[in-house]
Amino acid sequence: MLDELNARLLKGELLPAVVQDIDTKDVLMLAWVNKEAFDATLHSKRATFWSRSRNELWEKGATSGNFQEIAEIKFDCDADSILYLVRSHGPACHTGEQTCFHNQVENS
Amino acid sequence: MLDELNARLLKGELLPAVVQDIDTKDVLMLAWVNKEAFDATLHSKRATFWSRSRNELWEKGATSGNFQEIAEIKFDCDADSILYLVRSHGPACHTGEQTCFHNQVENS
Repeated sequence: MLDELNARLLKGELLPAVVQDIDTKDVLMLAWVNKEAFDATLHSKRATFWSRSRNELWEKGATSGNFQEIAEIKFDCDADSILYLVRSHGPACHTGEQTCFHNQVENS
Repeated sequence: MLDELNARLLKGELLPAVVQDIDTKDVLMLAWVNKEAFDATLHSKRATFWSRSRNELWEKGATSGNFQEIAEIKFDCDADSILYLVRSHGPACHTGEQTCFHNQVENS
């Protein structure tokens, strides 16, 4: 199955990566991973993404200090989405909230 | 913030939706949501997606019976990804595993 994930990344696909806190199990954020970001994450053991807006490699916490240490990496049955299980140093969200998913749909 | 999410959906954007079990807090799967799928989810209270491969609305469990009852819906700070917190009836994965994220990257 890892071959399938690697094949997608080698083809240049940009895959969604869910970040989950391994201790609290909260979902912290969702960002995007290409081959470069995936390789950087494996190498540095820090969650690293591809910024679609800045079009560049983005190590979470490189400027804020709120990096996310990789505990485990999983991927799904279609090998087209990734789950980073992390130990979070500081809040995930730029607003200061622990998780980026802090908006709730009422009556949901 | 909900205005921003609705604006994206009205523009025809297809957004990633993470599905998390509200009891175990396991991340079960990631699928895609457009306006039609979001509206259907709000209406039926069952996690509903847009299938990119079949190009059609897809209520999770409509054929398998393993539907996902919506407990809460959250969305992130950029209003471009969604989190369905669900009570899962049966396994999420077509392989029979509880979660689609059952593949682990070794040495991660």
